[in-house]
Amino acid sequence: MAPLRIDPTTLPGRPCSIAAALDIVGDRWSLLIAREVLLGNARFSQIARNTGAPRDRLAVRLRTLVDAGVLERHVYQESPRREEYRLTKSGRELSRVTQALLDWGDRWAVTTPPVRLVHHHDHTLHTATVCTACGEVVHRSDVTREERTPGWDVTGPVD
Amino acid sequence: MAPLRIDPTTLPGRPCSIAAALDIVGDRWSLLIAREVLLGNARFSQIARNTGAPRDRLAVRLRTLVDAGVLERHVYQESPRREEYRLTKSGRELSRVTQALLDWGDRWAVTTPPVRLVHHHDHTLHTATVCTACGEVVHRSDVTREERTPGWDVTGPVD
Repeated sequence: MAPLRIDPTTLPGRPCSIAAALDIVGDRWSLLIAREVLLGNARFSQIARNTGAPRDRLAVRLRTLVDAGVLERHVYQESPRREEYRLTKSGRELSRVTQALLDWGDRWAVTTPPVRLVHHHDHTLHTATVCTACGEVVHRSDVTREERTPGWDVTGPVD
Repeated sequence: MAPLRIDPTTLPGRPCSIAAALDIVGDRWSLLIAREVLLGNARFSQIARNTGAPRDRLAVRLRTLVDAGVLERHVYQESPRREEYRLTKSGRELSRVTQALLDWGDRWAVTTPPVRLVHHHDHTLHTATVCTACGEVVHRSDVTREERTPGWDVTGPVD
């Protein structure tokens, strides 16, 4: 299914791609579902166990993610019919979001990191965000915004 | 306030820093609040307008984020007492998560990107995730996981 595209001016608040992204994956279970399918756990029972999501809510979220073009269903057995889930290209690209959350969680949200990620079977993976044009690590102070929607400046009016 | 630290083995499902991070910021409003304070909109009325969050839910989320050590309250006027919100170090580091969501949203969630980000007043900002040790762009196929919690392998049992 083609990706669901939202007109950002129809969202509440600032027209923003972060808000549009969260409209699609902005609940706890969606990103944990993406994590599991990225790890190769494609079947409902695996995703249910590994996310801890209640099965009824999981079924709803999976359907929403299929409708949004993030996941697709794949029939791996015809009789009886059994399906599994695969990530589309947009779904696979959520790995940057889950990686950023993992790094933040390791640093700020857990008592002890529960997983070690290893890069090229050689070194512990920690990540940074860089500009693809100049290669520099991105610092907020080096970034300016050009809002394209009239009435939405960077800082809003103050009471 | 010190950051809230979660024992990841107490979470439902796979013990995971992504799940712990989402336990703290895994709802639509929290990350939009972080976006606004990152942009310099520190007051309740600004955050309410720019996120579009209902004021009662916004008040609850702001309190949760203060309790989690992501935001702190700052009194900018004593009589009458007026407060604004500031990001702690952990809160400022959420900018990597919001940047990843913005990039994903620009590519997959919106009809037209509503904002142009400019780096060093020179070029449009698009970002990539790199390994801080070797500098390479991270591809999932180059990453292996070592789970530290017994019973939690990468792929779970299949029915």
